[in-house]
Amino acid sequence: MKHSGILIVVSGFSGAGKGTLMKQLVHAYDNYALSVSMTTRKPRPGEQEGREYFFVTREEFEEKIEQNGLVEYAQYCDNYYGTPREYVEKQLEKGKDVILEIEIQGALKVKKAFPTALLLFVMPPSAGELKKRLEGRGTESREVIQKRLRRASEEADGIENYDYIVINDKLDECVEQMHSLIQAAHYSPVRNEELIENMRKELEALK
Amino acid sequence: MKHSGILIVVSGFSGAGKGTLMKQLVHAYDNYALSVSMTTRKPRPGEQEGREYFFVTREEFEEKIEQNGLVEYAQYCDNYYGTPREYVEKQLEKGKDVILEIEIQGALKVKKAFPTALLLFVMPPSAGELKKRLEGRGTESREVIQKRLRRASEEADGIENYDYIVINDKLDECVEQMHSLIQAAHYSPVRNEELIENMRKELEALK
Repeated sequence: MKHSGILIVVSGFSGAGKGTLMKQLVHAYDNYALSVSMTTRKPRPGEQEGREYFFVTREEFEEKIEQNGLVEYAQYCDNYYGTPREYVEKQLEKGKDVILEIEIQGALKVKKAFPTALLLFVMPPSAGELKKRLEGRGTESREVIQKRLRRASEEADGIENYDYIVINDKLDECVEQMHSLIQAAHYSPVRNEELIENMRKELEALK
Repeated sequence: MKHSGILIVVSGFSGAGKGTLMKQLVHAYDNYALSVSMTTRKPRPGEQEGREYFFVTREEFEEKIEQNGLVEYAQYCDNYYGTPREYVEKQLEKGKDVILEIEIQGALKVKKAFPTALLLFVMPPSAGELKKRLEGRGTESREVIQKRLRRASEEADGIENYDYIVINDKLDECVEQMHSLIQAAHYSPVRNEELIENMRKELEALK
């Protein structure tokens, strides 16, 4: 069953471990490409052009918007963030499954632009575990942790929009599970229109 | 992620190998229960009560219908065929995934009664292969084969109603694939309402 790749949107609570999960997934299997976002915010120490983000000016970003060169974009704290369309489309054509990390509003925009996109929501095994992980980082103030938990609570309202839940308990198992959910998605009729059409034509011809 | 089982409806072209596939699946993994249909037709030589079918009288069948004791039923050639509800519900409660083999009209009725049912459509790798398999049985007349191919063509119109396509090329691989599609289905939000509800309550409590 060979066809073009699937666009995979990964959302989930801050602290659920999305980033590590996605890196491991791309590392463990050949068939994935990680989409890199474009932003107008300044690079932080250690961040590398084209790895964490593509760093551009406000003018460049707005030009991209006008050219319909972004799958989706949003503004936070006076900065633009968006997903460049060209990279995504090229990788999909090559048959790669392209992974985007994005929050729910962006996820819904992507689903509109790419109706065959697969939406995954990463959760920790429990809310208590989420709190523990946020505290465990040791770098955030109590206030920031509270803010994150409130934000998680808001995001939890949108889970029904996702195709699958991914419980991030043990990392290795979770990576494997995520991979098999994506594999399963390749077998839905909506992602196999050509195959179904061919089967119909062949059956017609045999009658 | 423990919850009640999923009702799995398997449809597909005659000659696609559904029967063998389902038997192998139940044999290879612990977690499946095969639903046995009820019918008013007479048992054929070799058929066993409770294995191929539950054989009942017309009166008994109609009583079942009145008691809402069937998940779905239909009439073919003056005989009733249906899926007894009690067995299905008991197995689901035990956490078993229950497999039904049924054609598309029945599949859609089941989906209405059990919105979390998973609908799988089994296809041969090509229409030519389907014809070869039907001819290979050596028991059917040319006319019967033509009739089956026409029927397949009709059924192919309904594939979009199914959640996943299962290509039956190599049996072992196909059994494994079917299993992983069913496993994936366990991770959809609609089949995890309790888990999501608990997570929301926990997050609320932490705020």
